[in-house]
Amino acid sequence: MTKEIETYCDVLIIGAGPAGLMAARTLSEFVRQDPSLKVRIVDKRSTKIFTGQADGLQPRTLECLKNLGMPQIYEAANDMTTINLYNPDDSGMIRRTDRFPDTVPGVSRYNQCVLHQGLIERHFLDSIHEVSEGRVAVERPLLPESIEVDESKADDPDAYPITVTLRYLAEDEADPVQFGHKVSNGLFRTTLTTAEEDDAEYRLPEGKEAGLREKVHAKYVIGCDGGRSWVRRSLGLNMVGEQTDYIWGVVDIVPETDFPDVRARCAIHSAESGSVMIIPREDKLVRFYIQMQERAEQGGRVDRSQFTPEKIVDSARKIMAPYYLNYSRMDWFTAYHIGQRVADKYSVAERAFIAGDACHTHSPKAGQGMNASMMDTWNLGWKLGMVLTRRAQRSLLKTYESERQPFAQALIDFDHKFSRLFSGKPAKDVLDGSGVSMDAFKEAFMKNALFTSGTAVDYDESAIVAKTGKNGSAVASKPALARNITVGTRLKSEQVCRHSEGLAMHLGDLLYMNGAYRVLLFAGNAAAPAQMDRIERFAAYLDSPESFVSRFTPADCKRDALFEVLTIHSNSRDEIDMQDFPAPALYPPFDYDKIFADCETYHRGHGHAYEAYGIDAERGAVVVVRPDGYVALVCDIEDTADLEAYFSAFMAVPAKPLGAQAEKDWTFTAKAKAERRKRALGHVPVAKVDAKSGFAHVENIAVAAAV
Amino acid sequence: MTKEIETYCDVLIIGAGPAGLMAARTLSEFVRQDPSLKVRIVDKRSTKIFTGQADGLQPRTLECLKNLGMPQIYEAANDMTTINLYNPDDSGMIRRTDRFPDTVPGVSRYNQCVLHQGLIERHFLDSIHEVSEGRVAVERPLLPESIEVDESKADDPDAYPITVTLRYLAEDEADPVQFGHKVSNGLFRTTLTTAEEDDAEYRLPEGKEAGLREKVHAKYVIGCDGGRSWVRRSLGLNMVGEQTDYIWGVVDIVPETDFPDVRARCAIHSAESGSVMIIPREDKLVRFYIQMQERAEQGGRVDRSQFTPEKIVDSARKIMAPYYLNYSRMDWFTAYHIGQRVADKYSVAERAFIAGDACHTHSPKAGQGMNASMMDTWNLGWKLGMVLTRRAQRSLLKTYESERQPFAQALIDFDHKFSRLFSGKPAKDVLDGSGVSMDAFKEAFMKNALFTSGTAVDYDESAIVAKTGKNGSAVASKPALARNITVGTRLKSEQVCRHSEGLAMHLGDLLYMNGAYRVLLFAGNAAAPAQMDRIERFAAYLDSPESFVSRFTPADCKRDALFEVLTIHSNSRDEIDMQDFPAPALYPPFDYDKIFADCETYHRGHGHAYEAYGIDAERGAVVVVRPDGYVALVCDIEDTADLEAYFSAFMAVPAKPLGAQAEKDWTFTAKAKAERRKRALGHVPVAKVDAKSGFAHVENIAVAAAV
Repeated sequence: MTKEIETYCDVLIIGAGPAGLMAARTLSEFVRQDPSLKVRIVDKRSTKIFTGQADGLQPRTLECLKNLGMPQIYEAANDMTTINLYNPDDSGMIRRTDRFPDTVPGVSRYNQCVLHQGLIERHFLDSIHEVSEGRVAVERPLLPESIEVDESKADDPDAYPITVTLRYLAEDEADPVQFGHKVSNGLFRTTLTTAEEDDAEYRLPEGKEAGLREKVHAKYVIGCDGGRSWVRRSLGLNMVGEQTDYIWGVVDIVPETDFPDVRARCAIHSAESGSVMIIPREDKLVRFYIQMQERAEQGGRVDRSQFTPEKIVDSARKIMAPYYLNYSRMDWFTAYHIGQRVADKYSVAERAFIAGDACHTHSPKAGQGMNASMMDTWNLGWKLGMVLTRRAQRSLLKTYESERQPFAQALIDFDHKFSRLFSGKPAKDVLDGSGVSMDAFKEAFMKNALFTSGTAVDYDESAIVAKTGKNGSAVASKPALARNITVGTRLKSEQVCRHSEGLAMHLGDLLYMNGAYRVLLFAGNAAAPAQMDRIERFAAYLDSPESFVSRFTPADCKRDALFEVLTIHSNSRDEIDMQDFPAPALYPPFDYDKIFADCETYHRGHGHAYEAYGIDAERGAVVVVRPDGYVALVCDIEDTADLEAYFSAFMAVPAKPLGAQAEKDWTFTAKAKAERRKRALGHVPVAKVDAKSGFAHVENIAVAAAV
Repeated sequence: MTKEIETYCDVLIIGAGPAGLMAARTLSEFVRQDPSLKVRIVDKRSTKIFTGQADGLQPRTLECLKNLGMPQIYEAANDMTTINLYNPDDSGMIRRTDRFPDTVPGVSRYNQCVLHQGLIERHFLDSIHEVSEGRVAVERPLLPESIEVDESKADDPDAYPITVTLRYLAEDEADPVQFGHKVSNGLFRTTLTTAEEDDAEYRLPEGKEAGLREKVHAKYVIGCDGGRSWVRRSLGLNMVGEQTDYIWGVVDIVPETDFPDVRARCAIHSAESGSVMIIPREDKLVRFYIQMQERAEQGGRVDRSQFTPEKIVDSARKIMAPYYLNYSRMDWFTAYHIGQRVADKYSVAERAFIAGDACHTHSPKAGQGMNASMMDTWNLGWKLGMVLTRRAQRSLLKTYESERQPFAQALIDFDHKFSRLFSGKPAKDVLDGSGVSMDAFKEAFMKNALFTSGTAVDYDESAIVAKTGKNGSAVASKPALARNITVGTRLKSEQVCRHSEGLAMHLGDLLYMNGAYRVLLFAGNAAAPAQMDRIERFAAYLDSPESFVSRFTPADCKRDALFEVLTIHSNSRDEIDMQDFPAPALYPPFDYDKIFADCETYHRGHGHAYEAYGIDAERGAVVVVRPDGYVALVCDIEDTADLEAYFSAFMAVPAKPLGAQAEKDWTFTAKAKAERRKRALGHVPVAKVDAKSGFAHVENIAVAAAV
């Protein structure tokens, strides 16, 4: 006698790995803003723990985690700074032949790093709980049994076109499965923390019992259920690509060795015994990717039970000879063979989506897996949130596949090339056509360092990426106004100075992911009256009833809820006061956190942000940044019509818009402003710091006469 | 019918404010190492909350918190970067006349900052729990009722010479008292977090009931019970100094104002209405210290109930006119008048100590209070820990008073001068002898910026500070070997590069407070054979039975438990491998974290540590750093006799010493080393990074022939 219940929700996320958690985390921000939204995330495993699984974090991912309020992840992780290449010499002995930076210097303020996936997931769970105020939590163990999409209702915003049946699992059904075996194969539990042991307990959601079936009517479903995705298969989406026959073993150990570079990333090609990649981790652990001599039969599966830890380590010993290799602790091991495949479609009718490993599988050695997965739902989350809250048109959702699928294809192509170079036997000399040229390997490694940083992703032109004004975009950007900013890529963070405090901070830290677009007004030399006139006209537009802010922001929202205007001027803090900027558009009442300077600071130097972005320090520019941090549009301060056109293409007009900004507060009337200027301060020069003594010396400057 | 129980403990800390918590935290490290140690901390209040209390954190304090594993405190705090001076102009209107750095640039990697004391205490409680593995926790509300010290037993290490009677309080006895009133006066509870609300509950320790008396026999007592210290008065120790008659009001508000610098530190002298100091805080709060027109009668107390929040803010409005001042939220207010006093003695027989406000009281405006208090027990904690674990002689404890009392006197002298300059009326012109010269005020402010950073503290010569070899020290340092290091001051942190990983890190981060001395071997140019000979002789000494490591480390400890040797060479990572350094003294088996390089890194530049410390990059030096981070001795690599003499002066010989280091492991035999050298790598140059492309270019270098 199986009970069945029937429920409704806005979004059902299936799978609580990195892709699913990122989806839940980004949507939690919208749940916080609109508690009527119902977002659920379910997982069929009773535990989140997969010790040792994919755990490289790329600079771009770390930037996003910072913008989600999870900087602790970087702090706990192990930075990777260096890559060492070891190749056989003429006598066949491995030697270090090259050493170069792991993360390309200068691409980001973060370095590529490594941390246990379980800890990353723990931070996500905490953050989801906090941001959603307890409304979103992983429910487990729940198994999806059927899914149906009624495509005829796809365009109805009030419809629930998807029906999913979930079954609440009994304890014995819910053990994590790896490689077709229950958890005991390959999973060592010695290093689990207390918090993780709690998570490992079988505990059904309150009031539910094993065997219960739930028929869920959902507006949207996101399948984040891994490489063998049940959602993908049930929706009839296909993976395109191929498998290789190379088999790799993986161990996480605390090594004992006289190999000189065991605490740095290494790629080791032996003459005859295969290759090893070394990835140093947190907590003294080192991961070894070790090529096995066995091959998989084409198309067939591999019996992974033959790959014992000792067998895998023995392979490493052969490859790394004559160095001694042992370990004092092993946390985890596994074996895999490489497949490079990508899904042909990412959704059914932009209602049921797939994301993460469900869309793309590839080898783990480039540290791409978890990153590509999280970045999928980082991309989808805000779009879905905006459509659900009816701030954007449903057409916005088409850009998920159009942005993420080409990226996945490029990733697969890269991985295909790189894996073969890494798995192949080194060429003995230039005449050895069957071997891999070590020069070609090195070139591939270095050329792709930028790719693997995640910072080079450049989304194609679309309704939300204004490049040339063709190809689906309503507007053309003016790249000459910001020569070093590429529309379609993420805005690189540069240091600016908060005017009110003199505090050096990263512009990237202002891009907290709250679903809002940022309109960055690079105000130029605001101390010049002609430039201030331009700024004031821009501000007057923003406050007018015609502006995109007035038209698209709902009446029940704060004025910066959908579009936050941040001003970065190129003056010193002594040339101008923040109260000189037009209020309330640029300087809302008593909000001391909207005006920034690109100037010298006392303790962190000068950010030179204008120079870094290639923006004219006199005339400035406007840079529009999407909620996910990607540059949408670059235009001039006068180009308010372009801003209008850009947002009109995909934003939805609310039932009741916010309308023009009223000048309510006395401090912002023209009279009050004139009064303030009357008592304006004589601007004093920044104190000069004596490099030797460390003391500041301020010249005594007579206070200038009041204006 | 009052019950009474009788107990024993090693240390009883009375008072759980900043001084008491720092004592508990530093001692927790020793408890972790020796769980038989019994450390208790009691407080008479039922709650830790004092919203708004003293909360400036100086750079030196932040360095110590980092070395206690609490970097989160700095991350949550609000950096103070800038000081603005506002003075009356000829017409009597206040104007900004100066702006200069708050923290002297370059003195530390941390800036002075501000954070709610309740949050700081929360981090301490968590850290104490974690480090002591739950063995140390604050017990409350417990009131000390009597204390007796049997000085005749002071020198007996097995004796418990102190008897304290504690009473477990009932709920109504335990409310926090401020200014003679129960908690309702001046304490707003609107911003309390959930964690703090939990703490606010009345909850006696398990199994104890109100009214119970406990007779505690303690080896040591530390009185951290504030300015009106019961411990101090009970021990008959006296405060020396005076009170002023100026009264100050304090408010923590979220301000609404058109005053231009409300989010930066300001010192405002009005012509006739008194002075204001502005301290920007976390969470949009700003603290105002506001001079009141009322004066205290000499020697008498002040009825603080007359100082309502509105009255205090009104005073600020008068001083800051013509600027508008209001607030959207007030978290806290109080009023005080200034006293500058210091205790004549800091202990009875080095058994019962006082620390923090119990020893020194002064005005809060320099942000010194909490810092001076925590630094007292930061100084005492490791000394007491070493004596309790019988690693050091009891004479070590004499240096607590000899180091901290002169500091407190200097602090009081500074505060005395500064407070009067700040409270006085500005001179109208140079002929106005009764007014305060604004130039003199500015000079005092700037000259004392270094003092208030906490980094300039320079302890006098003693058994543990080897300067000239006179004045109680057994050895003379050789300052010429490290020209920019001052023995007696804290070691300033510089960037070094961990050899095994190529990771840029702060030397200061290696000084985790675990009770161990650090012996920093600046190894110089280790690639030069003659220099490597010197290094090898130094290493051979360390491993010999005569070395201080072999003699003073107990047999049941790890070799680096009391003396950790860290090597910093001046070579690049490509000129030498870390395995080239003598093992096991400098490179213990498979420990990849002891060897560092002062070299270029890929992502964080070159630390130039040798240059910063003034150490010769060829010949190096040895710098001995105390467990609290202060430099104890600078000597040459050959000066092993000086190291010997330094430690013999105060360390205790254990019953069973560790003795010489045995060369057990095969990888460290001479034969293994010779073999490793035979297959030594050709050293490759560091990759050059193209500044424009960001890509690394490595020249193809032929691998050098094996040695």
